[in-house]
Order: sequence, then structure tokens, then C-alpha cells
Amino acid sequence: MPSIWNNGLKISIFGESHSEAIGVVIDNLPAGKPIDMAQVRNFLRRRQAKPDGTTTSRIEPDLPQVLSGLINDTTTGTPLCLMVQNTNTHSSDYDNLKTTVRPGHADYTGFVKYHGANDIRGGGHFSGRLTACMVAAGAICGQILASKGIYAGAHLLSVNHIEDQKLDSISITKQQIEQLQALPFPVIQEKTRTEIIDLINDARMNLNSVGGVVECIAIGMPAGIGSPIFDGIESILSSLMFAIPGVKGIEFGRGFECTKLYGSENNDEFYIDDANQVKTKTNNHGGILGGITSGMPIDFRVAFKPTASISTKQHTIDVKTYQNTTLHIVGRHDPCIAVRAVPVVEACCNIGLLSAFILEHGLD
Amino acid sequence: MPSIWNNGLKISIFGESHSEAIGVVIDNLPAGKPIDMAQVRNFLRRRQAKPDGTTTSRIEPDLPQVLSGLINDTTTGTPLCLMVQNTNTHSSDYDNLKTTVRPGHADYTGFVKYHGANDIRGGGHFSGRLTACMVAAGAICGQILASKGIYAGAHLLSVNHIEDQKLDSISITKQQIEQLQALPFPVIQEKTRTEIIDLINDARMNLNSVGGVVECIAIGMPAGIGSPIFDGIESILSSLMFAIPGVKGIEFGRGFECTKLYGSENNDEFYIDDANQVKTKTNNHGGILGGITSGMPIDFRVAFKPTASISTKQHTIDVKTYQNTTLHIVGRHDPCIAVRAVPVVEACCNIGLLSAFILEHGLD
Amino acid sequence: MPSIWNNGLKISIFGESHSEAIGVVIDNLPAGKPIDMAQVRNFLRRRQAKPDGTTTSRIEPDLPQVLSGLINDTTTGTPLCLMVQNTNTHSSDYDNLKTTVRPGHADYTGFVKYHGANDIRGGGHFSGRLTACMVAAGAICGQILASKGIYAGAHLLSVNHIEDQKLDSISITKQQIEQLQALPFPVIQEKTRTEIIDLINDARMNLNSVGGVVECIAIGMPAGIGSPIFDGIESILSSLMFAIPGVKGIEFGRGFECTKLYGSENNDEFYIDDANQVKTKTNNHGGILGGITSGMPIDFRVAFKPTASISTKQHTIDVKTYQNTTLHIVGRHDPCIAVRAVPVVEACCNIGLLSAFILEHGLD
Amino acid sequence: MPSIWNNGLKISIFGESHSEAIGVVIDNLPAGKPIDMAQVRNFLRRRQAKPDGTTTSRIEPDLPQVLSGLINDTTTGTPLCLMVQNTNTHSSDYDNLKTTVRPGHADYTGFVKYHGANDIRGGGHFSGRLTACMVAAGAICGQILASKGIYAGAHLLSVNHIEDQKLDSISITKQQIEQLQALPFPVIQEKTRTEIIDLINDARMNLNSVGGVVECIAIGMPAGIGSPIFDGIESILSSLMFAIPGVKGIEFGRGFECTKLYGSENNDEFYIDDANQVKTKTNNHGGILGGITSGMPIDFRVAFKPTASISTKQHTIDVKTYQNTTLHIVGRHDPCIAVRAVPVVEACCNIGLLSAFILEHGLD
Repeated sequence: MPSIWNNGLKISIFGESHSEAIGVVIDNLPAGKPIDMAQVRNFLRRRQAKPDGTTTSRIEPDLPQVLSGLINDTTTGTPLCLMVQNTNTHSSDYDNLKTTVRPGHADYTGFVKYHGANDIRGGGHFSGRLTACMVAAGAICGQILASKGIYAGAHLLSVNHIEDQKLDSISITKQQIEQLQALPFPVIQEKTRTEIIDLINDARMNLNSVGGVVECIAIGMPAGIGSPIFDGIESILSSLMFAIPGVKGIEFGRGFECTKLYGSENNDEFYIDDANQVKTKTNNHGGILGGITSGMPIDFRVAFKPTASISTKQHTIDVKTYQNTTLHIVGRHDPCIAVRAVPVVEACCNIGLLSAFILEHGLD
Repeated sequence: MPSIWNNGLKISIFGESHSEAIGVVIDNLPAGKPIDMAQVRNFLRRRQAKPDGTTTSRIEPDLPQVLSGLINDTTTGTPLCLMVQNTNTHSSDYDNLKTTVRPGHADYTGFVKYHGANDIRGGGHFSGRLTACMVAAGAICGQILASKGIYAGAHLLSVNHIEDQKLDSISITKQQIEQLQALPFPVIQEKTRTEIIDLINDARMNLNSVGGVVECIAIGMPAGIGSPIFDGIESILSSLMFAIPGVKGIEFGRGFECTKLYGSENNDEFYIDDANQVKTKTNNHGGILGGITSGMPIDFRVAFKPTASISTKQHTIDVKTYQNTTLHIVGRHDPCIAVRAVPVVEACCNIGLLSAFILEHGLD
Repeated sequence: MPSIWNNGLKISIFGESHSEAIGVVIDNLPAGKPIDMAQVRNFLRRRQAKPDGTTTSRIEPDLPQVLSGLINDTTTGTPLCLMVQNTNTHSSDYDNLKTTVRPGHADYTGFVKYHGANDIRGGGHFSGRLTACMVAAGAICGQILASKGIYAGAHLLSVNHIEDQKLDSISITKQQIEQLQALPFPVIQEKTRTEIIDLINDARMNLNSVGGVVECIAIGMPAGIGSPIFDGIESILSSLMFAIPGVKGIEFGRGFECTKLYGSENNDEFYIDDANQVKTKTNNHGGILGGITSGMPIDFRVAFKPTASISTKQHTIDVKTYQNTTLHIVGRHDPCIAVRAVPVVEACCNIGLLSAFILEHGLD
Repeated sequence: MPSIWNNGLKISIFGESHSEAIGVVIDNLPAGKPIDMAQVRNFLRRRQAKPDGTTTSRIEPDLPQVLSGLINDTTTGTPLCLMVQNTNTHSSDYDNLKTTVRPGHADYTGFVKYHGANDIRGGGHFSGRLTACMVAAGAICGQILASKGIYAGAHLLSVNHIEDQKLDSISITKQQIEQLQALPFPVIQEKTRTEIIDLINDARMNLNSVGGVVECIAIGMPAGIGSPIFDGIESILSSLMFAIPGVKGIEFGRGFECTKLYGSENNDEFYIDDANQVKTKTNNHGGILGGITSGMPIDFRVAFKPTASISTKQHTIDVKTYQNTTLHIVGRHDPCIAVRAVPVVEACCNIGLLSAFILEHGLD
């Protein structure tokens, strides 16, 4: 379904970059769950532009308005709609007549699909701005997951060739996850953080952009959630992650690296620990076997391409005149979309996990 | 949905490794499309065990029986059901009492999810045998796609550290795809093929296993297919690929590598070619922008972990006695599941592409 | 799916009677279709309260605000969100503490399902007010259907024992449908209209309420739309009609009456008419055979129960004290919900027909 | 979805009247539930032809074969596939060339939808024979419901103008439901039964057919199941009932009759009974308010048209020559499809109720 996600939870996202508003409807939430809207706003703040040069300098508050589904800060069980007004909708009308398609963007593919009728101002429905809706929904889901002892956190694992330390998918704690969420810039190691900020600033100064990998981990998910074949946790999460603009890959557990291991190296042996819990000694499987949670941390990485909007001259076509032409993009852009994507990945993880939980255990 | 995939096409897979039969129902197929069942059987033959030591030595014919949906070798438009009888269903009953879970398999997660009631003989519903259903469905879809000039092909890009040549995602032809499909062992370069066969045989002799990457490419897909946000081609294909047992990652176009490129390197510039077609000079986007096809070849890679069944002693638990124990797996197994996964990936690609096509253009 | 309808079109409805707003997201609409918002407002006006005593005296303007999906009065092809602000949201807080459940309402069933957490002010998400969302969505769909020569119209066939004339399901014209839509009170025969208005006013004066039947007909729908078994036109339309509060029955074509006919009376003989069109001489099948349109007018009737809110004393229970008690409902209510339901039925018919059309013919 | 039903349970039906087999896949069943296949066969036997002249004289055993999903008579939790071989598949090939469409059947609408490619032998996928799949699935679901104290039963409420007694939707017991299920001919009152059998035999002798109404009731369903708006119990059950060939109407509780009642007559007052249970004094709401179960018996009636196959000469068209023509149907047919539809309605009720239950309470 185009902009509706249909699993245990149902998520409907609407809006365009320059329409009146963007928003999200979250349907089939359990009723009676307390929601702290200040925490939701905090989550959204993590997605906002940063003053360190690593993002666009246009900072929008993105305060979500609750249209329905919450009363006295508690879920009613009926559709919860969060809306964010678009405040910068006074773009000149001629914007919509722009027919020079930007390389790396959905301008051309959207033009073909919608026969030229779609709203292209600011990227329209393809805009990264729509990820605010994912974050808002994921923030709600995260609070419900927390009430069940389930927590997800993400960070920027790498930008270009610079790598942060990998999360420990065996022993990571709730406290460490909260520390991730509190980072002003989502890199764990201080030295790496500085290097990455410098790298991104360099790219920006050079009218260029860089890509990166976001790593996400979730703990506390009980074993036995998810389904074989088409509704496994990997299918659920990947369908959500590829909904985030700029994502070109996803891997779970040891991921592509496990293709270079022997079975004897990659298999995770089970054991019963001192607390009488079933664990695996290693976690190359990323907490998922046969599409079903094993009880170990769920661990995956998402590849973000470098921002498509770069300010150097590019060759492209004009879809109206159907001629080759060149393009010089002006304006402010994130030189590395992976930075602000960190809370988006974490939010989408929350959506997927709560959804799978509900499918198995219902709404009680 | 557990074992039903619901997109433009609807695919329902049933069966267990040792149940009476396995099968697949394909619903919402266009009516009146000629299907050559010999070709379907050929496609299934590509998934069969091979005599070169790279797969299990147990060769099953896997001849699919058409239960409905075809008449005079033409789709009726109503559900097409293909069934494959399980011929080896006389496994001793005690098999089902086995409670020592195999590392890397879904034995433990399935036990928790199904409260111990699932059929575990031969892996039950989690068995790689179920991929025959995917292949059968994908073989049908592939023939309908071919009637629209759309062709997908796959090969084994790497096993452990040995790499075959990458497909040319700019200029690959229908003939090259057909050559891929005709390979007795799915590696392009002859020297690499020998090395890979040797490597797999070595692993088997050492009671071990290896992983690999399958690369798949599709040509002829028109621009404008797919949807933004939740129903993009990447989401559609990834939800299908993670349905294949042993998949731990997927990447489109340049994939994870693009996280190490600058925007100026990664952006694919558009141009109108001599035949008045819109093309991109490079194809780092893998034929998909904003979830929608660009008209360029669709190109992705899928990571398969090393076979979990290895014959060396492993530590694990017994779920019935809830005790730590050890396990020594006997019997014949594929030392590298990626080999026989090649046609499965290609088949699932066919399913996804036909499905997306129908969503956009209907059943006409 | 709770408040999301997933067919060719996807409709997500959100809001509660006293939440900030109610609204609807319509996803998978064809792109580039002109929409006249004045007509949408007109359609909504047909659902508004009337000054003739047959409805509540509380008249709300219900002006929908377009949040996304329309640009220059043309569908963009991305989700179209229409929102209606709730202006009367200052209901005293104690309202939400009311625990005496009203007979005939969803107070009790909602309380059990949502564990008492749902918003019960004004009926919450169960309020008839949410039907404004259906009307808004159906008004959009109706304009797209009209561009294909498909038109639906509805009227009040009966209230209590007083019956309006049945529509002619063989020869009804577009002009007659437009006349239906223009009626200030949706009854065709003038004499009957007066009788029905009087009857409803009498019921209101007696602190009572009455039920009624809404008849709906659609013309211009081509043959061959809809699917056998689970996705027939009757299943599609009935799933939508039972979404309207107060509906207790639906019948297509001759409906329940055909159970009293002989096959020779009920069968509709086919013939090719002078314009070389396939027709049936009678239309007892209501334009649908085997779930698929026949090209004849689609004709159905929907039963609405008498308004549950009546001002006479009723016995009931208090769900908090878990005691028997009595209830005396005060306030203004529609004495006959079927009156304002007429455009709702017509709107839901539009949604269902456009949705089925898209499933068959795609978005082109 | 055409022949797949997607709710809490997922049901995929395949097959044509003269294909190799028909069958049904039931997905998302709870694991570990004991199933008595003898009971399933009994349920199917209720749908078989009868020797009393009220049905076709062609009695097929319709023994379902379990292909997957059951082990040791217990659900595995993975897809349960039941198949019924078609034994009479040697119909002459010319059958498929028949292009004179039968009035009241889906021959014409199917021809248009499938462009003439569908299998029309014996009605193909539209055949009443496919209801055996619904019965098989409903028989499985019924046994799981019974383990939760939920029971559904149906009978023939009327044939033409002859009416059986209505079920008591306040106080009906499990024993009375079991008596319904044990009736050799599904009419409660002995005198009425004889009259109905005579009436049907008369119709048959006159080369004609009659219609009827099936009443179904379910007890033991806890309150709080179902959802507002699009996924209410009425929407769920009606979408299933209209999947049964020949159904033209459905009503819940007092149904169409309630349109002739005053609110004071129709409202069902709540009270807490001596066993401290919430009840309503009357049950005009048929156990459903706002789409959600109230805990009272669920009660509905389904209208079946007279059998379309009658042996008198009828006018119709030939879709190949596109000419008016006449038709004389020969062969054996049920003179009243409502008779054998009784267990089909009951089965589909079981499917709907278990599905809604799972959506609310999960698979535990």
C-alpha cells in the first residue's frame, strides 16, 4: 500500500513538503497506554537540523499537534493522528513548473508515475520532511514498548570511511541505549564524532555530500515474535527502513559479513545462563532466526546514500521539453542525510517491533 | 501475514518438509496468459541438488502438479495452485520429539512461537524446501513478465572471499540474462566457478559450510512503477527476499558501498539517448528512485549466511529438559545454501516486479 | 483493519467527536484528476442538519480543509488528507467520566474493548460525526467516477412504514440521479416526503426515534469489475456500509425478496440491445453476478435502525459501579439517522466502486 | 483480495469445479489446538447432496486431504491446507467452448473480467463446489472456537413463503445449537420441514427453483471483540457471507425489521443478571454494537436467491457470436441452494469469529 503500512499496527502517512500539513495516523494501538508528549517532542528534536554544520541551517520546530487518539495523555485505542503544520508553504507557484529533474531524486520517477501531476515543491511527498511523521509514530510506539521492557537505540556507525564503534549486540544495556538517545550528535566515540563532523563540513564546503550507515539495536524483545516466510521480523523491519528516503541497503546481525564466515564461525550456540534464560554466546543472527525473535538483541544496519542535492553543476534532462540540459541546485541542504536519519531508523524500528508484538499477543 | 504475501499479486505458501505436500497459490494473476509448464519445471530444476558436491546429494525431482488456475496452458485469472508432493514423508515419528535445538536454525524460535506444536521434521515450515514454492510461483510470473519485455536473472556473486564478476547494470542484455539462467553452476567466470566449487567441496569435507552473495538484475521494467514510502520497489523486493531462509542482508544499486561515495560520485546523471529514451549514465541507484522504477536495470544483492547445519559438535540446549547439552548433526546438507538460492532470488524478483506492475497498470 | 479500509483505494479515518479534529486520508488515488472542492462542500452540506425538525438542530458547517494531495484543484496521486476541525471541543471534562452506558450505543462494547480508556465524549470515535469523513472521501471519489461516466445516487426509500417509490434499476438516468442529489429532503415523492417529515417530527416530539431504509443506485459501471469469492462488489460495498453507524442490514438487487421468487422469476435474461450493448431484461441481480459487475445499474438498500439516543427513561448499567441503574438522555439528537445517512451511503458507494475499478484497471 | 481473505485469519481458496482439485489454506491459526478430522468430515457431510429430492442427486464424498498444518491431529500453527480432489474432471473439452451464458450465473461477468480465458466447466471458480473449502476451513475454526466456549449454529429459516421458527437470540443454548447441527434436513419444526421439502420437490418437478433465508447464531463470544468503522463484526461477517454464491442480502439482529420500530422498541436495555453478567433484555442488536461484540448471542440472516440453473428455456446471448439466443440447461442441479448453504453460512461465521478473536487477543 502506497503510504499506508499494514501490519499489526497500521500507519498512514500523508502530506507534502509544501502542503498545508504533514501527518500520520497510527491505528490499532493498544488502549490505555500513557504517552508523554514531551518525550515525543524530544524524539522529534533529535531529527531537527543541528547548528554544527552537519545539516541544513533551516531549523523548523516541527511541533506535532494531536488531532485524535489521545485523552489525558493516554491512548484511547482509536486512531491517533499527529499533524505538523507546514509553515513555509509560501513557495512561489512557479516552483511547481520546474521540470528539470534532479539526479538522485525522485523527480523523474515521480513525474512518470504521476503523469506530472504530483506536487514537486520541496520534493513533495518524497521529501525527507515526511520522516518527521515516522519519528512521531515511532516515538509513540517506543513508549508503549518501554512499558513492556523493550528499548531501541541507534547511532551513526559510519560516514564515508570513518567508523564509530559497533554496538555490543550481546550485552548492551538500557542505560547505554538511553545514552545513545541523548547524544547531541549521534556518534559514540568523541574522537570519531569530531572527525565525522569535520568530514561532513568539508563536504558541505566543497558543495558535495557524504553517505553513512546507521546502526540500530533493540533489547528486551521476548522470543517467539514474528512469523516464518513473509512476515518475519526482517521483512517487517526492512519494509519500513526502505520507506526512509535514501536507504539503499539493510543487513541484520553479521549481515553481508557472514557471507565470508564458515558455518562453524557464524552459528550462535545456545545456552541457558545463570538467570535461567536462553541466550546465544554470539549474536551473529541479530536476534532473529527464521523470521522470529530469539530473545537476543535485534541488531541491524541501514545504508544511506550521500545526499542527492549537491550544489555542483549536473547533467540531466528537462521532462517537459524532453531535452538534455544542466542543473545547478541552490539552497540549503543536509550534506549528510544519515545524521538526521538516526532517530528515523530508531523510530521505524519501534513501529515494526510493536506491530509484530501485537500480531502475536493481541491488544491486551 | 505469515505465509501469505499480499501486494498486487497474492502468494500463499503452505507445507512442511515432511507433510503430505508443499504448494503455492498465486492469486490475482492476469487472465489469458500462456504458460509453458516445461519452462516452469526447468526453473525448478535450477534449484535442485547438483552432482558436483556443492549441494546435498539428495536429489528430489520436485515436479509441480497444477491443481487449478491453468487451462490449456493458459492462466484462467483465478487462483493458480501448484503442489509438490513430499515423497520422503516416512520419517520416523520420534523425529518430532527431538528437542535439542540446532544453532542457526529456527528450531528454538519456532518452538517458542508455536509452543512446541509445530512440525519440526526436516525443519517443518521453515525448511529450505519451501523455496520450491517460491520458484514455482516466480517461474509463472517470469513468463508473464517476459511477455511484457521484462527479464530477471541472477548469479552467485561471491562465496566466502571468492568473487565472480559483477553484472553490468547499464548495458546487460536479455541474451546475457538467458546465459545466466542456462549456467549449470551459477557463476559467470569459468576460473571463479572452479574455485568456488572447490571451496564449497572443501567446506563439506571439513564438515563445515560457507555463505555467499547472490546478485540479481532485471531489465525492461518501465519507469513509473512502485510507490513512495511504504510500497516502494525496494520494500516490495526486500520483504520477499527476507522470506528466503538464510538471508541476512540486501542492498540495491551501489548499496552499502555508496555510503563511502561523495554525492557527486553517487548521483546518476540523466540524459536522453539516441533512441530518445531517458537513461542515466551510471546506475548507482539500481533502477529505483523514491521507491519507483527509473527504467534503468533493477540491480540488487542478497547475503546468504553459511548453512546452519554443520556436522561438527555444537553446544546448545534441550528445550524440553531445559538443560545445556551438545549436538552432533548427521545427514546430508547443502554446504552452501547460496548456490541453490540463485533461482529462488530470481523467482522472488519476478513475483515482486509483476506484482508492482499490476498495482500500477491493473490486470488488463 | 480498524479504521483503515484497504482495497484498491485505501481510506484511513481518524478523529473523535470531541478531539481536535476529524479527518480522512485517501491513498492510491489516480493522479491528475481535477477536483472541484465546491462540489465536495456541497456533498458535505447534504449531510448537515436540516431546519425541518428531522435532524438535530445543531448545524455545524463541517468545512473540510485540504492538508495534502491536491494542488491547483488536481489530485497529486499522493495521499489526499481532508480534515474537519471540531469546533465544539470544550465539553466539560466530567463528560469523560460518564459511566452509565446508553442502550443501543457502543458505550458498553467500547468500554470493554478499550478497557475504559476510549474517549466517550459525544460518542468518541463511534460518533456519527465521523461519517463526515466518509462523505468527504466519497465526494472526491465521485468526481473521479464521473469522469469515467459512473454516477451513484441515493434516497430515503422508507422511514418506519412509509415508503418512497423505488428507483428504476433498469432505466434510471444520470439526470434522475442528479435530481436525487439536489433534493433538500431526500425523498422523491412530494406527498411521501411530507408524511415522512411529519412522522419524524412526531417521533421527536414523543422523545422517540424512527429507522429507515436508504436505497442507492450506480450507473455507468462497466462490466467485468470485481472478483469472485472474497472481493466481490457485494463484499466490498457491504464492508463499507456496515462501517456506517446504525446499519443493520444490506441487500443487493431484489435482495431478501428474491428468496420468495422462483428461479424463473428471479433470473435476469441477457440480450443485446439496439445499441449493441449487453443488457438484462430485468435487474434482480442488482448489477452484480458472481461478485462481478454485469454492466447493469448497481442497486442496493441499507437498513438503518432508529436513533439509539432517545429522551425517555431507560434501564441500563453503570460500568464503573457495576450496578443496574437508569438513564435519561438529554440534549439534541437526530430523531432519524437515516435522513442524514443518505449522502453517506452514496459516498461509501463511490469509494467502493472507484476502489474496485482501480483494482481491475490500475491507476492509469 | 480476490480469493484470499485477510483478517486475523487468512484464508486462501483455490480450485475450479473441474480442475485437478479444490482446496483451502488457513493461515495464522493458533498452534497446538487439537482438531478432530472426523468432525471436519461430518461438517462437510452436512453440505453434501441429500437423498430427499431437495438437492442434486449427484452425491460426492468430498473427503478432504490434509496437506500441511496438522500433526498428530493438532494444529502446527503454520498454514493448514486441506485439498479435495475433483473426481469428475473428465468433462469433454468442448465444454470450455460453451459461450452461451446462463442467466443468473457468473458466466457473462466472468467472461468479461477474464477476457474469456477462465475455466467455465461446471462454473469454474464460481462453482458452488468451492463452498466445500469454506466448510472445511470453518469446521477447523469451529473446533478452536469450541475450546473457548464459542459455538455457532444455523438452520433454514425460510424457503419461499414457508418459515421455520426463529431462533431465540436471548436464551439459545449449546445443546440447541448441537441439535441444529444434527438435523438431517436443516429445519427445526417437523411440519415445516415436510412442507419445505415438498415445496422444493415441486419446484424441481416443475423444472424450477426456489430461494431461502439461512439464520445463524453464535453464543459464547465474549464482549469487546471487533473494531469500530471498517473492521466491525458486521463488516467481517458480511464480507464472508457475500463470498458464498447466491447470497443477495444479510441482516444482523432485528435487521430490516428494525427500520419499522421506534427507538424505544428497538433499544436493548442493559442489566446485570443474577450471575453478575452484563446482558440485554432484548437482543435486537444481534450481539453487536458499534461493530463490537456485546456478549449477547450474535444473530444474523442471509438471503439466498433461487438456484440460477433451471431447466426451462431462457433467453440469453452468445458471447462469442455476440448474438441473442436461447438456452436450455440440462443436467442435475440443486433446486434450492439455501439447503446446502446452511453449513456454509455456519462455517463462514466460525471463520469470522475466530479471526476477530485473534485480532483482539493474539495467538496465545
